[in-house]
Order: sequence, then structure tokens, then C-alpha cells
Amino acid sequence: MKAITSRDNPFYKRLKALAASTHHQKKSGHALLEGFHLASAYLDTAGQPETCVVTDGALRHDEARAIVARIDAERIVTLPDALFGQLSNVVHGVGMLLVVDKLSPALPERVETSCVVLDGVQDAGNVGSILRSAAAAGVNRVFCAPGTAYAWSSKVLRSGMGAHFLLDVHEDVDAAQLLPRLAVPAAMTDSHAPETIYDCDLSRPIAWIFGNEGAGVSASWRAAVAHRLTIPQPGGMESLNVAAAAAICLFEQCRQQRASR
Amino acid sequence: MKAITSRDNPFYKRLKALAASTHHQKKSGHALLEGFHLASAYLDTAGQPETCVVTDGALRHDEARAIVARIDAERIVTLPDALFGQLSNVVHGVGMLLVVDKLSPALPERVETSCVVLDGVQDAGNVGSILRSAAAAGVNRVFCAPGTAYAWSSKVLRSGMGAHFLLDVHEDVDAAQLLPRLAVPAAMTDSHAPETIYDCDLSRPIAWIFGNEGAGVSASWRAAVAHRLTIPQPGGMESLNVAAAAAICLFEQCRQQRASR
Repeated sequence: MKAITSRDNPFYKRLKALAASTHHQKKSGHALLEGFHLASAYLDTAGQPETCVVTDGALRHDEARAIVARIDAERIVTLPDALFGQLSNVVHGVGMLLVVDKLSPALPERVETSCVVLDGVQDAGNVGSILRSAAAAGVNRVFCAPGTAYAWSSKVLRSGMGAHFLLDVHEDVDAAQLLPRLAVPAAMTDSHAPETIYDCDLSRPIAWIFGNEGAGVSASWRAAVAHRLTIPQPGGMESLNVAAAAAICLFEQCRQQRASR
Repeated sequence: MKAITSRDNPFYKRLKALAASTHHQKKSGHALLEGFHLASAYLDTAGQPETCVVTDGALRHDEARAIVARIDAERIVTLPDALFGQLSNVVHGVGMLLVVDKLSPALPERVETSCVVLDGVQDAGNVGSILRSAAAAGVNRVFCAPGTAYAWSSKVLRSGMGAHFLLDVHEDVDAAQLLPRLAVPAAMTDSHAPETIYDCDLSRPIAWIFGNEGAGVSASWRAAVAHRLTIPQPGGMESLNVAAAAAICLFEQCRQQRASR
């Protein structure tokens, strides 16, 4: 374990720059995982972090000590609470973060199972919620088209609650790259479509395309989908939040798969 | 129409104080509706706003002029773009907001239809998404228990996308107040429950209890629910985002109601 106590320490300065800028995180390929839950989820599936940063205060808690015990001693850095406070914008944070390399799985040659395509989903909370729903539904692959919120930003990681480590998340994949590899039919929601999600056979693998909060699915994906499906909405709203719509679609698929077994 | 050009104008000062503080909005009972979509949704269902604030720039757009044309001239205030910019934290805002009284429907004597109880849901985006899903599912009444994000804050209004005006939203309602009025069985999700949402008859009215993101449903509501239901999750995640879970439950109810007709 190494104790850092000065704000002029080079590692601390690097950490502060990373924490302050999603752009910087993206460029360097590093991600910051805040809190016990994300740290545990990472250790369970991905192995050792580059560095575990923990405060003196956090080390008084059993949960923090249990996590620290799983990490090689030379990878652990302790910080005074005041210095850590300048890194985190989590209001009731717990004084622990892991610095990790973001996972960058290779694009598969052929996609034969269900997957999710985020086609310009902008809101970090929505991206995290959809990753979490996909992982819960057993859909293991998510492709992020250009324009989608950066999946390894702190905010998406927080709302993903560890889903990142159960999924292969592919970033900056456009329709032209993905379509030749896609061996399953693509589907999108469309409130004007005649076919409902209940009428379509979803017990097969499906590539689910979820579009931008305002503009919806882009022209290149619109042209490629085999199924436009409506979620029947008896109330007077025009549309659903994209993460809510994704949850409904992915779990209607789970229901049909369960019923067909 | 009245043009305000000075930051010392008393109405502008009041507006700035309101925009800066959810606490201030809550105390005064006023809400700020930003953008064309919320303004239209409000005018469609709730009538005239207290004030419509619009920028000189926005008035060059047909959509803004169409909304302004629906509002009594004496309720309209124009602002230079620079002054309006200091009111809004919406990045690509459109230069229009309505100042309205929040709607405060009276507590019903008896609740005999489906409803939603938000039992300490903290995240404004989650609260807005659930209101939107409820309105889309045709569930017209939402009760917010103490500890839930303020439903009429700008952020909840934005993510609600007009659902507020299709629903009766009751705030600060605790279990002791609501339970004697509740004539329908209450249900909550519980990942350890043996009964699934598919096995339970949801074609009847249900009071859906959705709890805090971290702590879940509170003890007083836990003790009162008739059904603990699991959403079967074939993947490895422990849990879903609360707004995703709410969407799945509310739309599984829609599916069953549809199938039973």
C-alpha cells in the first residue's frame, strides 16, 4: 500500500484530471469505478484493477477492507478524505474507486444471439439502465453507435451497476460495420407500427435497436430492421422513455422464451 | 405582451430565484415548464399558465409562435436571449418556459383503480420515467411518499414529458394516510419471491409500490403488500433499475388486461 498525502503527487494529479473529464477518460482508455458495488463486480469478473484508491476513512469499514483484501498490495493507494473528496462528485460517496482499463472486446465475426444496438442514446442514465436491463435479460452483447453516450463514463458506470462486466460492450460501431455480421433479425419500436411486441415471435434471437431520445432510430438502421413493433399504450402518452421501452421489449422477449420452453 | 430587458426587474429576479432552487419551487408551489413539448402538453390539459416567458430568438420559430398564440397576451413576457440563458440549465434549450401553479389534486376517499406508489424513489430521472410509463399504461394516479424526489422539479418535469398533466400526482402521502383508502391489492417486486409477475393475475387493479434505489420498499409498505412478485431474470444481474422494473410491471399488467379481454 502506498499513502499519498500531497495534491502535487503526479498520480494524484493524473487521477484528478481523469475524474474531471469524460473526454480525458475516453482518450486514455481508463475508467473510474466508484463505490463498493462496482469494485466488487469488477473483481468478480475482470480481475485486478490498475489501481485501487481508498480513503483512510473508508478503511474503517469492513466492506472496504474486504475489497482491499482482494487486491494486490502494490496496486493500492490511500488518500486523505479531503483529497479524495476533490475527485468524486458522488454526494454520499464511500471513499473508494478503482482505476481500470476499459474493456474493449473485439467485434465478433458473426452475431447469432440476441443483442442490443444503442443508436445515439444520449442520456448517460438511459445508457446505464439499458445495459443493466440487457445483462438482467441475459442479452450479452451491446453495440454503441456513434452519438451514444460514452459507455465507460463514470455516470454510465454508476447507473449500469456492474452490467459492464457481464456484457461485451462494443463502442463506435456503425450500421455499415455491424450489418454484414448480423445473422439475426433486427427490430425497433415504432408507435405507428401495426405489429405489437406480443404478436411478434420474440422467442428467437433479435437485434434490438434503440434510438436517440429525441430523433429516434437513424435512417441507416431504420432501413435495416425486419420488424417495427409497437408497445400498446392504453394511456394518453405519446411515447415512453427509451430505457423503459427497452426494458419492456427485452423482458417481453424473456417472457416469450420462458413460455416457449 | 410585456418586454423585460433589465436583470433588476422584480419579475425577472423572482424567476431567477425560482429557476435556481427546487426548494424554492416547492415552497412557492410554482413549477417551471421548459420547452415546446411541456408547454403544449400543459396547454392541452391544464389551461392558461401564470406566465409564458419567451425569448426574442424563440419567437422567430413557428412552433414557439403557435404556442404563444394560445396564451392570453397579458400573460406573456419576452426576454433577451442572454437573460433567459441565466434561467435555464438545458443545454440546447429553446427559449420558452411556462410558470405554472403545480397541480395538487385532493386525496381520493377510495382508490379502486390501479395506481403507483413511489416509496422514496430518489432520482429525478427515475421519477419522471415512472410517471411517463404510468401515464402510457393508463394508470392515472401516482402517490409519492416522503423521501421521493419532488415531482414538480424541473428535472422530473423534463423527464416526465407531460405525464404530470395526464395524472393525478399526490405528494407527501405516507402509508398510514393511503392504506385506509386503498381498495385494491398492493404489489411490489422482490427478487427472492416465488411468485412471478407472469403467474399473478394482473388483469385486476393493482397498487404498485416502487421503492428507493438503494434501500428498496420501506417497512410500512412491505408489511402492507398482498403480492411480492419476481421479474425472472435469466442473466447474471442482481437487480434492475427501478424505472425499468416499473415499466416491466406496468406493461405486463397491460398485456394481461389485453389478453383477458
